[in-house]
Amino acid sequence: MQRIKDNINDEYKIIQDRDCFSYGVDAVLLSHFSEIRKKDTVLDIGTGNAIIPILLAMNNSYHKIYGIEKQKDVAALAKENITMNKLENIEIINEDIHKYPYLFTKGSFDVITINPPYFKLDSAIKNTSDNKMIARHETTAVLEDFVRISSELLKDRGRFYMIHRPSRLVDIISYLRLYRLEPKLIQFIYPYQRKEPNMVLIKAVKNGKKELKYLDNLFVYKNGEYTKELLKIYDDLQIKR
Amino acid sequence: MQRIKDNINDEYKIIQDRDCFSYGVDAVLLSHFSEIRKKDTVLDIGTGNAIIPILLAMNNSYHKIYGIEKQKDVAALAKENITMNKLENIEIINEDIHKYPYLFTKGSFDVITINPPYFKLDSAIKNTSDNKMIARHETTAVLEDFVRISSELLKDRGRFYMIHRPSRLVDIISYLRLYRLEPKLIQFIYPYQRKEPNMVLIKAVKNGKKELKYLDNLFVYKNGEYTKELLKIYDDLQIKR
Repeated sequence: MQRIKDNINDEYKIIQDRDCFSYGVDAVLLSHFSEIRKKDTVLDIGTGNAIIPILLAMNNSYHKIYGIEKQKDVAALAKENITMNKLENIEIINEDIHKYPYLFTKGSFDVITINPPYFKLDSAIKNTSDNKMIARHETTAVLEDFVRISSELLKDRGRFYMIHRPSRLVDIISYLRLYRLEPKLIQFIYPYQRKEPNMVLIKAVKNGKKELKYLDNLFVYKNGEYTKELLKIYDDLQIKR
Repeated sequence: MQRIKDNINDEYKIIQDRDCFSYGVDAVLLSHFSEIRKKDTVLDIGTGNAIIPILLAMNNSYHKIYGIEKQKDVAALAKENITMNKLENIEIINEDIHKYPYLFTKGSFDVITINPPYFKLDSAIKNTSDNKMIARHETTAVLEDFVRISSELLKDRGRFYMIHRPSRLVDIISYLRLYRLEPKLIQFIYPYQRKEPNMVLIKAVKNGKKELKYLDNLFVYKNGEYTKELLKIYDDLQIKR
């Protein structure tokens, strides 16, 4: 593991593994999209180096944030990052989320965030053989498991925030509906104008009323630079660029 | 009924009921979005005054197009329109689609098009109490029925083309997946840039492989006039403006 310490801003830092876990636009977008309130207990599934809990904690009042990560060395890195940043009420759990019945009480979370671990923006763009992997039954089953488990763990009216690939939208929406996490808000992210969207943000509410709303499409780059809209998100989250 | 005869172009005309059945952008978009091949047998569900069969027939080779319309006077108008335009191999059936087992052979259609009759673009924009209607169980059941019946009537790999409201996307996608019409292509239509989309085009394929692709977003108006992209669609379909 090639450890590199980066500054999120003047106050917060993060140790990253350059090969696997450099946080990207996806983590930033998901953190910005997720609404966290003062009394909320939050679970970040597949937390990696804990970038999502850190960005959430930097920018919101909250009761408690859990990050769960099954890889031992990655979970260790996440714990180090939490300690280094002196963040309180964040707990990293080194476990597989499939063991949730032994870890958490059902219906105990206000918010669940998830940036599925196999979804890496860079590889998604570069690796065209990726579709083959995506089509594999196992990957699909993982997505269904994440949705099913999230539904079990969320309170009634609890909020579920996910970033994923638009090509998986049918799976995502079908599973959310199936497990009573009603999609309420959607935003498509485009690398450039006139390209296909390459990310989608979805908010779902457990047992929510049926009504899907759309946020403005977000474009990441224009003329080789981040767009104003994207830079505003980095500024909103107090992330140094 | 206030009958008005309009010119689609120098060759084709349509009698419309100004109060209920003036064809709109939705019919034009759906006709343009639908791919029809020479040997295809097509069914247009809720065909109204037959604008969709007429636009399809004006612009494609096909084997046969059926339009089904349950309202008697509207179906009569549709028949009149077909006769007036001397279009061959289009048949208007004055029946409720729910009687499909008595009307059609299962798995006999290559293509089904549907512009759900309760979805009127103008009323959708003007009538804000509309959501109440949409939320009613009956409306939802109708959408599910349309999808279920379409799945029964389509051949393996048959194509389903629909225009609908983006707020219903969760219902649409969930029902399509449930009835094995796999969504393959989606396009969001926006009245203006920076507004929420107000229409969505969806192509699904019976027993299709899971993979959703996105067409460029389409904007209808800019500075109070139709956009170039929209005008091109009218031109492509040989519709006089």
